Amino acid sequence: MKNVLLSIEYDGTNFCGWQRQPAKRTVQGELEKVLADLCCVEVSLNGTSRTDAGVHALGQRACFKGEFAIPLENIGRAANNILAGGNRHKAGDVRIKEVQEMPLDFHARFDAKGKTYLYRLATGEVPSVFARNYSYFIKDPLDVALMSEAAAHIVGKHDFKCFEAAGGNPRETTVRTITALEVTEADGGITLAVTGDGFLYNMVRIITGTLVDVGSGRIRPDEIPGIITSCDRQNAGHTAPPQGLYLAEVYFDRLPEIKTGKKLQQNSIFNV
Amino acid sequence: MKNVLLSIEYDGTNFCGWQRQPAKRTVQGELEKVLADLCCVEVSLNGTSRTDAGVHALGQRACFKGEFAIPLENIGRAANNILAGGNRHKAGDVRIKEVQEMPLDFHARFDAKGKTYLYRLATGEVPSVFARNYSYFIKDPLDVALMSEAAAHIVGKHDFKCFEAAGGNPRETTVRTITALEVTEADGGITLAVTGDGFLYNMVRIITGTLVDVGSGRIRPDEIPGIITSCDRQNAGHTAPPQGLYLAEVYFDRLPEIKTGKKLQQNSIFNV
Repeated sequence: MKNVLLSIEYDGTNFCGWQRQPAKRTVQGELEKVLADLCCVEVSLNGTSRTDAGVHALGQRACFKGEFAIPLENIGRAANNILAGGNRHKAGDVRIKEVQEMPLDFHARFDAKGKTYLYRLATGEVPSVFARNYSYFIKDPLDVALMSEAAAHIVGKHDFKCFEAAGGNPRETTVRTITALEVTEADGGITLAVTGDGFLYNMVRIITGTLVDVGSGRIRPDEIPGIITSCDRQNAGHTAPPQGLYLAEVYFDRLPEIKTGKKLQQNSIFNV
Repeated sequence: MKNVLLSIEYDGTNFCGWQRQPAKRTVQGELEKVLADLCCVEVSLNGTSRTDAGVHALGQRACFKGEFAIPLENIGRAANNILAGGNRHKAGDVRIKEVQEMPLDFHARFDAKGKTYLYRLATGEVPSVFARNYSYFIKDPLDVALMSEAAAHIVGKHDFKCFEAAGGNPRETTVRTITALEVTEADGGITLAVTGDGFLYNMVRIITGTLVDVGSGRIRPDEIPGIITSCDRQNAGHTAPPQGLYLAEVYFDRLPEIKTGKKLQQNSIFNV
């Protein structure tokens, strides 16, 4: 018996999210089908994050167990070939980046110490047809300095109930620690990068919407502490749409220290 | 009666090309439907270039005639709103960039003096799920200096029959003038920019495939003149796939002079 951990990249545009659902195309469903065919064993994937429809991943993690008919090192290559429809010049919309064996008691969700999400905002006069599924277009000018000031109030250990949408799984506590929340301006857009030990339902999208509301002047940065302590979703900003959100990285060893000023490798992520 | 010229951007991924076809989703078909509803007049669009399925446009041009119920300056905004499904935070996959009135005898195809196409190659160890519909992934290392050397042999006035695919409309002559063909390396890829007074069927894709074959060592740059004078498609390289191709610009006044070294504004085009 082996316990296999995958690192997975996907374009969420044409998926009804991560989680397997009957008669719907989901990332988990597609991967389980391909892996079961390849490994000649029924596959049940445990993903770190149940991303919503339209949300992307640069580094989703998921593990599965089984006695496999093919060597571990061939699983990724063989699966990607099937996922790309046999076209070696074009990826499919989901791709396995890495395959590794883990101890049998390892679990991709329960053992995750934290995650980094990116959120991409596109700014400018008009929306681009090419960015429509990969960013949130904002026509209003956004004040990045105000957004950064607001972001600094969010970093830390807080009860983040104000940033939780209804409809998620019940949680024991709504206290989470955000170790970094950076707002970076680059050609034609703004990227938010948020790292934390865990996230409530739609938390990154509500934080993003709130920071957009700060950037456009609807909320002042100094209102953020009061919004957080109110524990009231009504006081926070709007929920940003799914297509700008990317699950970027999952941490199993330990969460990175609180830090600022880290430059994102934007070119490698967002250039097509 | 007015003659209206449009500048149009589209993501060709989910279109069966430009040209109207019964029961298929095409750019011309979608635009004619939306414009007819808006203008309360039957609309027949003349596009400059009949792009193939999967091919994109940054600046396709098309004109149509009619007596309109709405003012000219409202056509673009109203059409884009319908094309985006009423979502002002997200473009549709086709968008009107500009609307202008032209003399009645102006024709978007017959009056075009030339065009610029871009072709985007993605390089690296593995293909990206995000680039799959917007570039041609090449795993082999490509020698950009060799590609530029080969490109220089293609610039000029030649019989380009060797770069014409079967299946296009019959042409009076296969002589064309290429005024610029530039190969530029940027983060994670290579962009070709080719400007000419006209292009044969699949000509840019065959030139691209030939330059890729040069870059990977299958064709030497000094073989290009012989390939051109042979007038034989068999001697040229492979046909690059449609998803890397972008109709970038159409020239009506005059074709730009032959020039080299022009830096592309890549960020504004390819960043999402």
